Amino acid sequence: MTTEAFNIPTSVKWQGDSIQLLNQQKLPHMTEYLTLTSIDEVFEAIKTLKVRGAPAIGITAAFGLALAASKYETNSLLRFKQLLEKDKNYLSYARPTAVNLFWALERMVKSIENATSVNEAKTALIHEAIQIQVEDEEICKKIGENALPLFKDGDNIMTICNAGSIATARYGTALAPIYLGKERGIDLKVFACETRPVLQGARLTTWELMKAGVDVTLITDNMAAHTMKMKKISACIVGADRIAANGDTANKIGTFSLAILAKEFNIPFFVAAPLSTFDLSIKSGQEIPIEERDLEEVIHINGQAIAPEDVKVYNPSFDVTPNEYITGIITEKGMITSNYFEEIKRLFKS
Amino acid sequence: MTTEAFNIPTSVKWQGDSIQLLNQQKLPHMTEYLTLTSIDEVFEAIKTLKVRGAPAIGITAAFGLALAASKYETNSLLRFKQLLEKDKNYLSYARPTAVNLFWALERMVKSIENATSVNEAKTALIHEAIQIQVEDEEICKKIGENALPLFKDGDNIMTICNAGSIATARYGTALAPIYLGKERGIDLKVFACETRPVLQGARLTTWELMKAGVDVTLITDNMAAHTMKMKKISACIVGADRIAANGDTANKIGTFSLAILAKEFNIPFFVAAPLSTFDLSIKSGQEIPIEERDLEEVIHINGQAIAPEDVKVYNPSFDVTPNEYITGIITEKGMITSNYFEEIKRLFKS
Repeated sequence: MTTEAFNIPTSVKWQGDSIQLLNQQKLPHMTEYLTLTSIDEVFEAIKTLKVRGAPAIGITAAFGLALAASKYETNSLLRFKQLLEKDKNYLSYARPTAVNLFWALERMVKSIENATSVNEAKTALIHEAIQIQVEDEEICKKIGENALPLFKDGDNIMTICNAGSIATARYGTALAPIYLGKERGIDLKVFACETRPVLQGARLTTWELMKAGVDVTLITDNMAAHTMKMKKISACIVGADRIAANGDTANKIGTFSLAILAKEFNIPFFVAAPLSTFDLSIKSGQEIPIEERDLEEVIHINGQAIAPEDVKVYNPSFDVTPNEYITGIITEKGMITSNYFEEIKRLFKS
Repeated sequence: MTTEAFNIPTSVKWQGDSIQLLNQQKLPHMTEYLTLTSIDEVFEAIKTLKVRGAPAIGITAAFGLALAASKYETNSLLRFKQLLEKDKNYLSYARPTAVNLFWALERMVKSIENATSVNEAKTALIHEAIQIQVEDEEICKKIGENALPLFKDGDNIMTICNAGSIATARYGTALAPIYLGKERGIDLKVFACETRPVLQGARLTTWELMKAGVDVTLITDNMAAHTMKMKKISACIVGADRIAANGDTANKIGTFSLAILAKEFNIPFFVAAPLSTFDLSIKSGQEIPIEERDLEEVIHINGQAIAPEDVKVYNPSFDVTPNEYITGIITEKGMITSNYFEEIKRLFKS
């Protein structure tokens, strides 16, 4: 066992009458925890990306709705439900495409269907939000448990973007085995790709791993091949934004490059994601729409231009890694390593 | 033939009694041409990276030495040669590891070995500097001629870093076929990788191609795989910092990643470089030392931190692409595509 002190950062904490939220916008320059005391502050925090990561957004919204409802001054359950519906709709507009946001808010509203009083409903909402957070942490921990045996003490692990603790309730997905290893004295060293254009690797992954006492080294994205070769990378592990029914995985731009490089060096390439990330309505990665974002993201860094202002830019936010590049997909229900179409169906049935 | 106006930027121009130098440090924000009128200004310009690219540095230093010598107030040829030796040594310290710098300065001193008067020597030095520049342009143009038949009108070409006109006398190495194509109505579209950490692709390659009217699209380095697939990249072409006797090629970090990705997509991967880039004393890429630079380059962009200030960083400046990933090496004497060890020897004998 390691005797070092460590502390895995988390982004959302319920404080009884307010929400404590890590302001990810200010990282890594400043570790600022906001205290949100109104639904408007919660809406604003989600909208302006102070909280990011689909699970963390869902958890924040759930607490936001419980917080709003705790202040309704009515004894009528009907009126209470009307107010709740209105606030649910309001919060659902904070990020129009965040699936976890809608899912969490729907679950909150459903949780009081059988409430018999306003006070019971208020309590139920707080419990449900806590439950959403607890379940997410459990899922992340199970992913970590399932991934940890893939690595051994001293391994060098490469990752991209931030599929970490602050994007979830705790532990993260791709970073979960790193944290569990740290808790159990299995030291895994991380090489974090900076992840242009938005630099989630440089800004967030390095920060949270350093806070937890994990040995992390930052590289620029184009150093991946040289680093795999020179630093004897043992494995890559990444998160996922959406996984098709055949295992093709959409994730942050650069993931596909890493997967190809890993294959060339015979390095196993793992995707870590909860079952909620799978979209069985999509047969293969070819059907996943790839968002192209504003060229400003590429041309400017911290508001300063790094290229001619009028240059043409191609800025896809995600790429799709075909299943044949993926050594294993690690979920809370275990890892699958081949026959992805059949194995994914089996995961959902078990 | 295209009827568009175009203008391939160059970085060094002799003006009779001064040197006009493009200030590459200010690109792409400002197109500033400096007028250098003293050897101290030339030293400073090289030292502070206002001029970069090995051939361009050599040319600038050669003109700098001619400029200094033109002002020596002596009629003694012996005294003239002493002053020249002193100034040669002074300029050679502007960039301690730049091979072209030493080579150009030595060649300048040699050019007046047989001079019979100070005036003849002064004229000879100016002629020699011009000759160095003319020869470099001819070499680049020949590389372009040899590379151009590899591409066809409308091709999408990917490159990294800046092996362009402003790094040489004119045309560049990797970009030479693009410019020759443009002059002849063969439109080649370029996808330029931004090239972290120093962003030569974003700052310089986009700028010079846009000035010349070439269709260029900027991407971040981690978009390479997705872009190769989605934009039907026809070929990659890159420059070289040093080529071993077996064809293994050291070039800007990220080159090796590109080469692996190109192989995976069956995209030809070309290296364009003059014979002066080959180092036959080095048997293979394993012997090429890889410079690791200051971690500040990765952590800060335009003086602003993009990662925790105390994060560990791995910052190799170059990587080595093994010869088996290289479809062809294009020199001023033609292209070689296999049996590199034998073919490189043959190039030097012919």
